[in-house]
Amino acid sequence: MSLGLRRAFHPSSKAVAFCTNNWAIHAWRSSATNNIRFMSGVGNTLADIDPSRLEIVKNQKPGTPPPSSSLKFGHTFTDHMLTIPWNVISGWGVPRIQPYGPLSLEPSCTVLHYAQTIFEGMKAYRHENGQVTLFRPDMNMKRMNTSAARIALPNFDGEALLETIKELIRIDKSWIPKEPGHSLYVRPTMIGTQRAVGVGPPNEALLFVILSPVGPYYPDGFKPVSLFGTTEYVRATPGGTGAYKLGVNYAPGILPQKEAAALGYAQNLWLHGPEHYLTEVGTMNLFVVFKKADGVMELVSPPLDGMILPGVTRDSVLALARAHSAGTHRLENLPEKLTVSERPVTMREVKDASMSGSLVELFGAGTAAVISPVDRIGYLGEDVLIPTGSDGMGPISRPIWQELVGRQTGAIPSEWSVVV
Amino acid sequence: MSLGLRRAFHPSSKAVAFCTNNWAIHAWRSSATNNIRFMSGVGNTLADIDPSRLEIVKNQKPGTPPPSSSLKFGHTFTDHMLTIPWNVISGWGVPRIQPYGPLSLEPSCTVLHYAQTIFEGMKAYRHENGQVTLFRPDMNMKRMNTSAARIALPNFDGEALLETIKELIRIDKSWIPKEPGHSLYVRPTMIGTQRAVGVGPPNEALLFVILSPVGPYYPDGFKPVSLFGTTEYVRATPGGTGAYKLGVNYAPGILPQKEAAALGYAQNLWLHGPEHYLTEVGTMNLFVVFKKADGVMELVSPPLDGMILPGVTRDSVLALARAHSAGTHRLENLPEKLTVSERPVTMREVKDASMSGSLVELFGAGTAAVISPVDRIGYLGEDVLIPTGSDGMGPISRPIWQELVGRQTGAIPSEWSVVV
Repeated sequence: MSLGLRRAFHPSSKAVAFCTNNWAIHAWRSSATNNIRFMSGVGNTLADIDPSRLEIVKNQKPGTPPPSSSLKFGHTFTDHMLTIPWNVISGWGVPRIQPYGPLSLEPSCTVLHYAQTIFEGMKAYRHENGQVTLFRPDMNMKRMNTSAARIALPNFDGEALLETIKELIRIDKSWIPKEPGHSLYVRPTMIGTQRAVGVGPPNEALLFVILSPVGPYYPDGFKPVSLFGTTEYVRATPGGTGAYKLGVNYAPGILPQKEAAALGYAQNLWLHGPEHYLTEVGTMNLFVVFKKADGVMELVSPPLDGMILPGVTRDSVLALARAHSAGTHRLENLPEKLTVSERPVTMREVKDASMSGSLVELFGAGTAAVISPVDRIGYLGEDVLIPTGSDGMGPISRPIWQELVGRQTGAIPSEWSVVV
Repeated sequence: MSLGLRRAFHPSSKAVAFCTNNWAIHAWRSSATNNIRFMSGVGNTLADIDPSRLEIVKNQKPGTPPPSSSLKFGHTFTDHMLTIPWNVISGWGVPRIQPYGPLSLEPSCTVLHYAQTIFEGMKAYRHENGQVTLFRPDMNMKRMNTSAARIALPNFDGEALLETIKELIRIDKSWIPKEPGHSLYVRPTMIGTQRAVGVGPPNEALLFVILSPVGPYYPDGFKPVSLFGTTEYVRATPGGTGAYKLGVNYAPGILPQKEAAALGYAQNLWLHGPEHYLTEVGTMNLFVVFKKADGVMELVSPPLDGMILPGVTRDSVLALARAHSAGTHRLENLPEKLTVSERPVTMREVKDASMSGSLVELFGAGTAAVISPVDRIGYLGEDVLIPTGSDGMGPISRPIWQELVGRQTGAIPSEWSVVV
């Protein structure tokens, strides 16, 4: 597509250079002046992401996708990646699809010191008819912009980024595993790349997107996990960053996870406050189902109070349950009457319900695992038990999961499925 | 020092590759087997940092230090950097001093997604007699290990790392500005470099150290700063990471700082809880001085309760004040009677003291600015005023600052000064 571009990816150059040469900025500053756009809401004239400027350099040494059965989540990457540089003077530069390979980052780059990084996780599915779709990618684009604003990284036109991501996926389509339950994990990331040791809004940033073929989270059927009700560490706090998909929310959770594992639990159940409000599960949103006194089931998720990540799977579970409950879109095998709530839930409520038999199920929801049933919670020295069905799931999560996965894989047509 | 090594830094290669080639790991696994050490406290036999393995590749195109008057904090870097790779199989690899230049990092590296980064800030001073010293570097080495453990990065022998850092400083000694108040800012950083999109303890990491010549924080004398008493955002929380020098504590503070600046304040005063406890100032520790009913001054800093960074300057200020108070080392011009406290302080106490005339001064303390006096705090819609002297400082901070800077620059001999 651009021959002149190839110089930057000369075979002898091992890494693609970013934030290392001022010439690069000057080079595309001049071309960007013909392409200035007004970024809504920012009040500044800077170039936005422009798919018509996309440059493609094909990988001359394409790899061979490994057997799907050998895939380990997030360990295999496809032949290409997308990169889009940004700087404070010109805005967004030329989007480039290029061979997957290392980034060249100065050791002073702010991301390496001050954690200026945000990311998204989405999945592309290959349907039986060969069509490839993304699941509600507009929500990821919107959230990525919200995350960027929270740590003073630049905003962008989400639809424009999505167009370039679709092109990347089309180019690496052969990497999408064909087997049921498999997909292509899409990881857009944005990092601050200012070359100065100082805490402030970066004058340079880099957006990149990499693709990883992945298998089903539970290859042998659902396996309920155990949680450790974590009271020593917190994931989020009022006035903090729990509602944004920032890198900073993840590194601090690794030690607590190790400690939970040492105690025999799979993941942390993040609690908050002296009331021990349930917030999230590991890196997933959380749902609980109670059977109320009148026999009606209540599906509950903690509210988006600033501490909860507004998950796409969370939103989808709530939307499906509400549509069923309202009678606008009934789901098979789901109890006709169902109350859907976003409200705080304490460990006391869960424990009491477990004891009295009114706890129906508890599960995590996220892009990677979709639905992750839970069978016990270690809490203040004892285990709170949670019912699970013979297939590992519960009566509410099972039909919702079936509908959700059907829509994701194309078995059930849906407006949530966006053709790539 | 090592000719074979130069291949990795071939002139045509623009970036130094890390976490990109397995051969590198295998190459030094074999040499590391002759050099296994027992890491105390870890219970595992992995190679520790070993200064005797240090390899040096001199920069063949050394730069020219810019005029000291043009130095902008953290924008200029010296000719060399130190890198030490680590992996979970072998431990710490060969420490290398090599030309300052970009790192080659795979786009999947965990630091770029999950904020697996920790750092330190220290200063090397060039004394009038030409000697170069670091100020209490043992504290930085100790804290860096504490930080590493908090996010599941590897620990190391702090004395060994310090030896290699000293060698780096000696090699770039000509970059240390000679002018009074100038120094060489030393930035050790450790990042997780596992090449997989998954949240967990990394199987690879990289420790690197870069050097930046810096001028005095206040080139024209002390300028008191204004603070915005921040109630919407928090810096730290119980169960969080505020007591560790992690990258994750910094990115989230940038937006609040921008908002404070838009309101006309220089920095955030981070408050905590409904009582609005004072915790830190921007990226500095905090001190307040009250005049008590009996006329005795009380120097207060918030306690190390898990939300406060254990700062080296903070510790030094407390130690000097306590030595004076105990009579073991009197400081000139400091009131003979002085109470030194580490205790919680609320905004109400500060505001009441400001109104009644018993607020003596309030200042930040950190490596970059050493002492940073404050003259007002925007709090709940009004300004709380804080006295400052004609030189910008106060009666307690002034003599302590003089002693501290004297010890740092070598004018006052001290066991805190470590010869490079």
